[in-house]
This record gives sequence, structure tokens and C-alpha cells, in this order.
Amino acid sequence: MAGRFISLEGGEGTGKSTQVRRLAESLQKRGFAVLTTREPGGSSGAEEIRALMVNGEPGRWDAMTETLLAYAARSDHVARTIGPALLAGTCVVTDRFSDSTFAYQGAGRGMDRETIRRIESAVLDDFKPDFTLILDLDVNVGLQRARARGEGEDRFEKFGTEFHERLRQCFLDIARRNPERCRVIDASGSQDEVAAAILKAVTTRFDL
Amino acid sequence: MAGRFISLEGGEGTGKSTQVRRLAESLQKRGFAVLTTREPGGSSGAEEIRALMVNGEPGRWDAMTETLLAYAARSDHVARTIGPALLAGTCVVTDRFSDSTFAYQGAGRGMDRETIRRIESAVLDDFKPDFTLILDLDVNVGLQRARARGEGEDRFEKFGTEFHERLRQCFLDIARRNPERCRVIDASGSQDEVAAAILKAVTTRFDL
Repeated sequence: MAGRFISLEGGEGTGKSTQVRRLAESLQKRGFAVLTTREPGGSSGAEEIRALMVNGEPGRWDAMTETLLAYAARSDHVARTIGPALLAGTCVVTDRFSDSTFAYQGAGRGMDRETIRRIESAVLDDFKPDFTLILDLDVNVGLQRARARGEGEDRFEKFGTEFHERLRQCFLDIARRNPERCRVIDASGSQDEVAAAILKAVTTRFDL
Repeated sequence: MAGRFISLEGGEGTGKSTQVRRLAESLQKRGFAVLTTREPGGSSGAEEIRALMVNGEPGRWDAMTETLLAYAARSDHVARTIGPALLAGTCVVTDRFSDSTFAYQGAGRGMDRETIRRIESAVLDDFKPDFTLILDLDVNVGLQRARARGEGEDRFEKFGTEFHERLRQCFLDIARRNPERCRVIDASGSQDEVAAAILKAVTTRFDL
């Protein structure tokens, strides 16, 4: 798993942050060096950009500005955290990466997919995760879970159910378009069940 | 001058903010509605992004992240301030626009010019100022003026003289490449002399 880059994707309340930790623990138990991180954020500068994105009212940023903030944060995250870790032979597991921009700013907020792709290409070239797990869950169940956490950072929760339904369909569409890179994981089970499904997908994909 | 978009560009301490005000006053005296603004910033969101860019240590952001922050701020500025004003028939005079990204993040920090152009094209299409005045001044004189102001926001001043010499040459190069849009103004004279040169260039360009 040296230098492998794994992303977990999905909507609000699908359990990504818990499952990032669970997957990292399982891989560490097998002797691999693992760094866990998240987006937006994952480096000190990117966390400052995150604060601009996830707080406040839905209309605070338009879709284009939000897309550029997402890629500014991602650029810093890759340069300062992900890139150095991969080069050092660490396995990196991130809670969200580029697919989330196509879902949130694209399908959710209406940014043209091709424009996001042009920005992505300018920023990341063809850098992408080796493997992506898409946690799929009924939108209302996920939003209830997210609201129950009550952590603040609720700007995207305020966009409403239809917005989040578009995200879910976008993530499933990304999985269909990228069958080599993506696996859809049913996130409706218990934490243990979901963790087991993710670990099985990872061990199968990397032949561990 | 209804719906005309004018930018003033140049290095640190070239007197842009004073001259933006002076030009707006002269145009207002002639009966035109004028909005003055600045970059990075010019809208409430863009001013928050500005704070991330202009404070702190030089190495706080790499060139790519800085470019994306600049375009995120510009996107908000165009959507919330410049665009609505131009549509309402106001003349907009801005202290900096896209040329500053090619100078600061391109020539200064080494971002590939073509990559900046690809991001610009995705964000702004072909939206650009109708007329750009490039204030040209000896770099050491400009940096002394900027430091004498002592306003904080000095992250870019810290990059040193060679960095700022590259900016100056880049601005002059932009003027050479865009002779229809750009005029170079000698900024070494008194405020009154520079204001007169700018007003003459504007009245000539727009046949006032």
C-alpha cells in the first residue's frame, strides 16, 4: 500500500469520517503506514479556506467562486500534505477529493461539468485517487445523521433535500463512469458492516 | 462611459489607489457614474479571500494555490460588484485585475503563463477591461513608498527586489502584447502629473 491514495466520497451523514478512521486502523494493523486527511482542508492553509466554504449562508458564494475555493484548498492539500506523504511511501486515505467538487459544485450548484474539468486539469493534471469508495445512503437518513451531529459547518446542509438528492445521483454516476477506480458501498448498515465492506473492497482491489 | 471597465495596474507603491480615486473624481465631474473598487477584494467575500493572500509569510501559499485564490476572489468580485455595476450602466475603475495575476503569480512566483491563461479562460471567458493603465515606476522607489505607508498587508513586499523587478517587466510586456487595451503611464512624477497623464489617456481612448 506504499504511496497508494484512497478517497472516500458521499453525501452528508454517510459516515465517511468514521470509515476513513476505521479503514486506516485496519490497514495500520496489517503493518502499513497510513495518513488520514480530509477535504476541504487537510493542510493549515486549506483548513482556513474550508472555514470560508462550510460556514455561513448558502448564497455566500456562487458556484464558480466555490469551485475555485475548493481547488485552491485542494492545491494546498496536495502540495503540503498528500503529495509529500505519497512520495514518502505512506498510504493516504482522504475524506473527499475531486469527485466532491463535481457533486457539490457541479450537480448540486449547477456548475458546468466541463468547466470544472478544465479547472481540475489545469490544477491537478491527471492526479487522482488510486481507489475511491462511494458511500451511498438515503438522502434523508444522511441529513438527519448530519444534523444530529450539530457540529456547525452546516452551510451545505442548508441547501435542502433536492440538492442532496442531486449529489447522490452524481456520485452514483461517477461510479458508473469510472468502474476501475470506484466502488459503491451501501452505507445503510452498522458501522461495523460498512467498515467490513470497505475493507473487503480495498483488500480485493490491492490484492492484500 | 456607461458600462466601461477600466483597470489600473502596476507594482507596489506606484500610486494606483490614489490614481483610481483621482480618475473617478475627474470622470464624475464630467457627469459620469463611476464605481471604484480594488483587487484582491472589492466584494465582501473577495475581501475575506484577500486577507488570506496579503498577510503572513511569503511561503504561506504556493504559486498555484495563490493563483486559484486570486481567481476565486476575482470571480466573486465580478459576480457581486463589477458585473452588476456595468450592467447598470456605471463606469467601473478597479485597482488591479487579471494582469496582476500574470505579474504576481506568473512572472513573480513562477506559475506557468499558459496554466494561468487556462484558469482565466475557464473563469472569465473573454471578459477583460476595456482599457488598462499600467503605472510604471522604478522598483526601489515603489517599494520605499509602499513600506513608508506601513499598512500591514505586506506579504508581497517581502518577496524582495528581484521579484518586483520581474513584475515590472511583466507589466511592460503585457502592455507591448496588448497595445489596443493598455497604456503605460510614467508614475515617477507628482500625483497631479500622473493624474493628468491618466486622464488624458482615458479621454483620448474614449473620445470624451
